[in-house]
Amino acid sequence: MKTVFSDRVRDVPRSFIREILKDALMPGTISFAGGLPNRELFPAKEIQAATHTVFERYGNDLFQYSASEGFLPLREWIAHRYKEKGLEVPIEHILITSGSQQGLDLLGKTVLNDGDGLIIEEPGYLGAIQAFSIYRANFLPVPVSEEGMDIPKLSAVLKTESPKLMYTVPNFQNPSGITYPEQNRHDIARRIEKTETMLIEDDPYGDLRFSENHYSSFYSLIPEHTVLLGSFSKVVVPGFRIGWIVAPEPMMQKLVIAKQASDLHTNQFTQCVLHQYLLDNNLDAHIAKIIAVYGAQKEVMRNSIVRDFPSEVTFTNPEGGMFLWLTLPKPLAALDLFDLAVKDKVVFVPGDPFYIKQSRVNTLRLNYTCVDIDTIQTGMARLAKATQSLLSNMQAG
Amino acid sequence: MKTVFSDRVRDVPRSFIREILKDALMPGTISFAGGLPNRELFPAKEIQAATHTVFERYGNDLFQYSASEGFLPLREWIAHRYKEKGLEVPIEHILITSGSQQGLDLLGKTVLNDGDGLIIEEPGYLGAIQAFSIYRANFLPVPVSEEGMDIPKLSAVLKTESPKLMYTVPNFQNPSGITYPEQNRHDIARRIEKTETMLIEDDPYGDLRFSENHYSSFYSLIPEHTVLLGSFSKVVVPGFRIGWIVAPEPMMQKLVIAKQASDLHTNQFTQCVLHQYLLDNNLDAHIAKIIAVYGAQKEVMRNSIVRDFPSEVTFTNPEGGMFLWLTLPKPLAALDLFDLAVKDKVVFVPGDPFYIKQSRVNTLRLNYTCVDIDTIQTGMARLAKATQSLLSNMQAG
Repeated sequence: MKTVFSDRVRDVPRSFIREILKDALMPGTISFAGGLPNRELFPAKEIQAATHTVFERYGNDLFQYSASEGFLPLREWIAHRYKEKGLEVPIEHILITSGSQQGLDLLGKTVLNDGDGLIIEEPGYLGAIQAFSIYRANFLPVPVSEEGMDIPKLSAVLKTESPKLMYTVPNFQNPSGITYPEQNRHDIARRIEKTETMLIEDDPYGDLRFSENHYSSFYSLIPEHTVLLGSFSKVVVPGFRIGWIVAPEPMMQKLVIAKQASDLHTNQFTQCVLHQYLLDNNLDAHIAKIIAVYGAQKEVMRNSIVRDFPSEVTFTNPEGGMFLWLTLPKPLAALDLFDLAVKDKVVFVPGDPFYIKQSRVNTLRLNYTCVDIDTIQTGMARLAKATQSLLSNMQAG
Repeated sequence: MKTVFSDRVRDVPRSFIREILKDALMPGTISFAGGLPNRELFPAKEIQAATHTVFERYGNDLFQYSASEGFLPLREWIAHRYKEKGLEVPIEHILITSGSQQGLDLLGKTVLNDGDGLIIEEPGYLGAIQAFSIYRANFLPVPVSEEGMDIPKLSAVLKTESPKLMYTVPNFQNPSGITYPEQNRHDIARRIEKTETMLIEDDPYGDLRFSENHYSSFYSLIPEHTVLLGSFSKVVVPGFRIGWIVAPEPMMQKLVIAKQASDLHTNQFTQCVLHQYLLDNNLDAHIAKIIAVYGAQKEVMRNSIVRDFPSEVTFTNPEGGMFLWLTLPKPLAALDLFDLAVKDKVVFVPGDPFYIKQSRVNTLRLNYTCVDIDTIQTGMARLAKATQSLLSNMQAG
């Protein structure tokens, strides 16, 4: 049967994260491996009320085939929200997608031929690596750190490879939690605008900001070179699978054709429910509640590292979002720490799947959104012990 | 900007149907051009009740990220329904998709390399042509008629082209309304099972059966060579965008990877609502109501043709589904009839977009599901007059 498959799926591995977590974990294992928003914060009652309203308001229109571009009032709401933040986004440049993941799929489908160059952050978002692997992108990793993207390497790659796309998560990146500093954004924009490269600005976490700092969106700096992706998954609920793409004409025309061919349109009923929820509630007040919880949990996790971890370990201090990134002293490998930690009933995601051509890396991702403060303290104490033990073994060996 | 697009989307035209209908139609125009189920028959009250139940039953589980394979109880329900019809389908061979259209996209993604052969019915389903165009299929049209698929042509294409896929809608086909006779199905199956070709059996309309006739599913004849597609769009509601794929291992593994990369998973909330609706209601009783309406409307349309149209016009007599197919005497073109008819305030879909390499064809599609009996009579009288007029012009010229 193998020969019947396309080249594009033959080489895509099953999810690394699923694989390493698939063995039944011991009862009582604490997981920092997740990438999920905290389900306790879902606005279930408000969504239930919105659902009640739309049955009365729209009747059978909730259930018919509808526009590939998405539910117009929802697109208008998104444009209005951008306007409040100082971004002018024409409504006809907004396409509703079945989650941000579909935004990535549609961009790959619309832009990439086999082997076309695509700049990916190193470490980079796994969902993007999977989506663009399907379209056989030639991944061009450029390192990111708390200083943002590495500008000399970016310049070199832009010059030698003329990539078609560049994928970025400039706010509270997944997996590293880093945020591109303001000057770094301007440095990137100045380089991109001289090229044919289209920059994808994926911003699912942008509203989950703990700090007072604000940064320029690439869309505000170089709108003609930017495709902006947004999502309701992290600020309302992920189970609705509703995100959006902002793209310039004529790319939007091609994206709509690709959307039609992919699934005709996004779930109409849920678009109406979500829109009603947004009309009837104050989204910023809801986001403030999420930020209070995530921010407090991030602080506890960070304080545990400062207090209990070997001083050779370094880590990011996320200004928002869901993840913290930890770097072990070389030559320790995160996979070895994983093997020790799982016995001590704590798990995380080793950095390996977030790199294109590296393995046995010394970095790992910690999620702090789905675990309460007591659990974070218990889990981080276990992880500190495992890290100390791995380090001692190395120093002894 | 043109050069930034992938080859796969550069050549896909915008929807022909949208284009011909985009000019504002005169008020009072009757449309047989639609492809929509009748919205008056949507079970809105029952869905509202199911929605109420799932809020109580599942709470926040409705809203979290969930399995790429789909909501397990819904997959179990589908397997059980197949069993009632005599088909043994393992639950792990069922993948929930964001509508049948996504099933086509995932199959193209998983199987087709550029230029791979794909047998398509002639005339064939437009959504399939769009989905597989994206993956640059080499379309191999094989004619279908009320005698089913043309077996000599099928044999020749299988032999000379070794296609990877064959796409069929054996029950009440879109656009033609034809149904493959029983013997034709066996003839096809005997030929396919000797090849490496995978047959896609798309069956969105199968339950909407007016006749007493029953036919063997390809999945029952050659399960290892068949991918079966199903959908709730025509029997419950299309706006939920919920369909499914039944595929053998190891294809299912690849499809799940493609699903993850495409949109992670199908809308969780709506899967739960739909499942609850199916638990709490008798789907067959609901389908019986749809059949009564569609069957009566089909009869009225068919009687209008028998009574009022020039005897040179031939037409199908659908045993179910949503469409009737009309063939004009050559050399009349359906596009010319469209130009006349639109002035007389009645529209349909000229056959052209349903063929791969033919234009100005003499066939056209009529939809009878969204227009009541009085409107069908008025619209068909207008269309009979336009047809007579076109025919007289030809005979005079």
